Order: sequence, then C-alpha cells, then structure tokens
Amino acid sequence: MRKISAIGIGAGDPEHLTVQAVRRLNETDVFFVLDKGSEKQDLVGLRQEILDRFVERPGYRVVRAPDPERDRTPDDYRKAVADWHRLRTDVYENMIASLGPDERGAFLVWGDPALYDSTLTLLDAVLARGNVEFEYDVVPGVSSVAALTARHRTTMNQIGRPVLVTTGRRLEAGWPADVDDVFVMLDAQCTFSRFADTGLEIYWGAYLGTPDELLLSGSLTADLASRIQEVRASARSRKGWIMDIYHLRRPVPPRL
Amino acid sequence: MRKISAIGIGAGDPEHLTVQAVRRLNETDVFFVLDKGSEKQDLVGLRQEILDRFVERPGYRVVRAPDPERDRTPDDYRKAVADWHRLRTDVYENMIASLGPDERGAFLVWGDPALYDSTLTLLDAVLARGNVEFEYDVVPGVSSVAALTARHRTTMNQIGRPVLVTTGRRLEAGWPADVDDVFVMLDAQCTFSRFADTGLEIYWGAYLGTPDELLLSGSLTADLASRIQEVRASARSRKGWIMDIYHLRRPVPPRL
Ligand SMILES: C[S@@+](CC[C@H](N)C(=O)[O-])C[C@H]1O[C@@H](n2cnc3c(N)ncnc32)[C@H](O)[C@@H]1O
Ligand SMILES: C[S@@+](CC[C@H](N)C(=O)[O-])C[C@H]1O[C@@H](n2cnc3c(N)ncnc32)[C@H](O)[C@@H]1O
Repeated sequence: MRKISAIGIGAGDPEHLTVQAVRRLNETDVFFVLDKGSEKQDLVGLRQEILDRFVERPGYRVVRAPDPERDRTPDDYRKAVADWHRLRTDVYENMIASLGPDERGAFLVWGDPALYDSTLTLLDAVLARGNVEFEYDVVPGVSSVAALTARHRTTMNQIGRPVLVTTGRRLEAGWPADVDDVFVMLDAQCTFSRFADTGLEIYWGAYLGTPDELLLSGSLTADLASRIQEVRASARSRKGWIMDIYHLRRPVPPRL
Repeated sequence: MRKISAIGIGAGDPEHLTVQAVRRLNETDVFFVLDKGSEKQDLVGLRQEILDRFVERPGYRVVRAPDPERDRTPDDYRKAVADWHRLRTDVYENMIASLGPDERGAFLVWGDPALYDSTLTLLDAVLARGNVEFEYDVVPGVSSVAALTARHRTTMNQIGRPVLVTTGRRLEAGWPADVDDVFVMLDAQCTFSRFADTGLEIYWGAYLGTPDELLLSGSLTADLASRIQEVRASARSRKGWIMDIYHLRRPVPPRL
C-alpha cells in the first residue's frame, strides 16, 4: 500500500521541526512540492533547506508540480472555485499515482497541517475519487499562532477564557461576539486598523521564525496601527511577498 | 544575567519535541519541576523520560517543588485565588533565585506554553515583583489541539471560517456565537453531551500521544455521547486521572 504523510514543518524556523517530523522525513521516498508562483520561491527554498539539513537517508526524490492558479475575477464564482478544486485534486492524484506501490510520499505543510491549509482536504478528495489507493497520516507542527505567541511571550487565552482564530476577511464584519482574544491570519488588508483606539492590545509578527522576522506590539492606537501598516508595506515591497499574523487582545481584569 | 526558558514539550508524545526544544534542553543547567499531586505522577514521569532521552549534556540538576494546592471551596473566593497566585509566585521566585548568576533554568511546559497554562503569567509576576532578575524566552510546542487534529486527520477550520478554543465551563453557557468549529479543553463534565443530536460531529481524544491514547469520533448522537462518557469514566478510574480534549464541528456546506 502506498503511504502518504502530511508533515507539519513549523511556521518558518527549520528548528520548529519535531523529532517525529524528522523521523518521517527520513522514512520518505518522495517529497511532493507545489510551486505557488515566483514570489513564494523563498518558501520552496525553506523546504529544500529542511530536506538538506534533516534528511540523512540518501536517494530520496523530489517531485514538483505547479499549484493551479485560482481565477480571482471569475464570471461564475461557484464554477471557478469548483474548477480550481478539481484541478488541484488532479495534481495531487497524479503526484500520488507516481509513487511505487510500497513507497512513502510526503507533503511538507507549513505550520500545522490543521490550520488554514488545504492539504488534508485534497488528500480526502483524492481518496474519495477512488482512482489511487493510499494510507495517510498527519504529523502535527508548530503553527504560526504558537510561533507568534512564543516570540511575544504572550498567552493565547486570558485565564479561563476562550480564543478565536479567524481570517482578515471575517474580521472585516466587526469584532467577533463573546471573545477577547482574536488571532487573525490571511489578512492582506490590515483590518486591525479599524479597531484602533478601542482599548485593544496588538501583537503583530511577520516572517516569524525567519531571518526577516518583524515584531511589533503595544496598545492599538491609531499611531501604532499606521506604524504597522508602514512597516508591513515596506517589507512587502522589499521582499515581494509577506506573511503576517496578529493577536488582538481586549484585556479583561482578572477575577481576583 | 540568569536565563529562563519556558519550553513547550508537546502534548504527550516525546517525539513532539522540536529541534529547538532539544537544543534548549541541552543548554539548560537546572530543570524546574512542579509536583502536582500523586495522580499526575505519570506526567512528571514523561518529563523525566524527555530529559533521559534528549539531554546529552551531563550534570544538569532537577529542582522539584510542590505546586501549591488551590482551595476549591473557599469562604472568600477572591481572597483564595489571590492567595493561591501569591503562593505560586513565591514558588517560582524561589526556584529562579536558586540559580547561579549565569545559569539557565527551564520549565518544561505541557503542549504549547501559550495555551491554558500559567507558566508565562507566573514568570511575569515574578519579574514584576523585582526581587530576582532574569531574562526569559519561550519555545513554542505542539498543542493538544494540534495533536488531536493530527490523530483524527481533521482540520481545525472549515474553508475560510473561524475556530474557537474554549473550556468546558464556558461551553456550559451554550453554543458559542458565530462559530462552527469549537475545541474544548479542561472539561471534566462531558459538556458535549448537551449538544447530542443537534447535527454536530465530534472528534474526541484522551491521553493523546501516549500509549494509552483513546480516540472516538462521528456524528454526535446521544449514543455516541454516552459511549464517550463510558469510555472516559472507565479510563479515568483505571488510571486515576484523565486528560481529554474534543472538537465539535457543525458541518457547513462548502460554497461551491
Ligand atoms: C495558508 S495559512 C497557513 C497557516 C499554517 N498552516 C500555520 O499553521 O500557521 C497562511 C497564513 O498563516 C500565517 N503565517 C504562517 N506562517 C507565518 C509566519 N512565519 N509569519 C507570520 N505569519 C505566518 C499568515 O497569517 C498567513 O497568511
Ligand atoms: C492546563 S491545559 C494545558 C494545555 C497545553 N498547554 C496544550 O497546549 O495542550 C490541560 C488541558 O489540555 C488538554 N490536553 C493536554 N494534553 C492532552 C492530551 N495528551 N490528550 C488529551 N487532552 C490533552 C486537556 O483538555 C486538558 O484538560
């Protein structure tokens, strides 16, 4: 039976790799790499660095394929998303079909595979088609949420209270109900700015765990909001891409 | 300057340790261990196993102290919590004060140090007192949330949607607003039961990453709810303690 692993590789620092991940890397015959367009070449580079550094077993293969582009301005939105999902499932299916019958393949998944990543969904879609048979397992990883809090030395939750993880797009709809700690990912719009001067703290990080790491934090005043916007915009234009995440906290007095 | 690290050790499997954590372990002179009562001896044992397996540097010390018990039925609730916090801060302060001037101490923190753990809060409280000076850093880890999803091969979020992480006590107040994916920790009451037969899926796990690991999942019917309650109760009475976590999902049709 073919075997597939979705291996969480942490959110930027190669040393986020777990012992379990290193073990799996060394059991893998073929690594599958999706090429996501030129601005993300750095991320492909990091995956290569991980292989060079941690795989001691010789003779593994790397199979690359382009990750199909999504039509971002379609006439028919539903059809465009369905087409895109189908094309991506094709790519995954073909990659897996290229494995020998008893080989193990692996996808190196950024951060933790459970968080805003489509690898597991696509593996299930390939299985559901029934054209190629395989088993798969998941190796958990350090998420960008954990990377952010570690660098700021903050907690996710306040004592006994809940935490929301969400996207920039969702946050545009307003402050979420009944939570005081919100982690925002996938936000190209600096949506935090609309909450300036409302009594929040912000903990912001970009390129976490990499040599380009940027950290800013403090009371979310209008000043700090524009400062982060500026730092973000200039980093982005310098490097050509950016990955950032932030934590908005409404401090709740402890029940002492 | 004294140095302290709060090192995330993952949620049960020693192989959840990251390369960064292993490095820090090997830079540490003194490990601080809080003894939390007899039923958790297994967890102290796991920490020792981690040291035995990953620390190559000889001559480190282990300093143990009892974690003060909290009065769970106080006359004056606020005073009891404040007293407990003060006592715990004393313990941390004394442990850190026992370090030589240039030594590094470490706390091995279960899962990820940011998630429902008081180590960082206590380190900040010791710093705020100003009696002992030290620097500290945080090594992120694989949380029980990541461990749970990896074993069930599920995602935390549905596509583009938010995720809530909360406690059993909070969930008692009812289904949280505006979320379809909820992770529940610290729940001794099997609060999931009250959501039986309301169209949810449950992914439950206990002793994740350990040889005693238990996993159950499916549509959250009344049957499955009582099945989990039984499995949980019998495991708990067999071992004397339990650690479990679950994910409740309300499936949302993809916007295809
Ligand atoms: C497609 S999601 C993948 C998340 C990943 N699975 C994880 O566990 O972090 C990409 C988003 O994660 C966040 N992110 C991932 N790595 C990051 C890093 N090194 N620095 C800052 N943000 C990061 C950003 O919000 C980015 O938009
Ligand atoms: C005090 S909190 C600490 C959480 C930890 N910092 C983390 O990142 O997972 C303890 C709770 O975490 C969850 N938990 C931690 N480890 C677990 C494991 N191995 N299996 C199941 N649940 C676990 C349980 O809900 C437990 O009540």
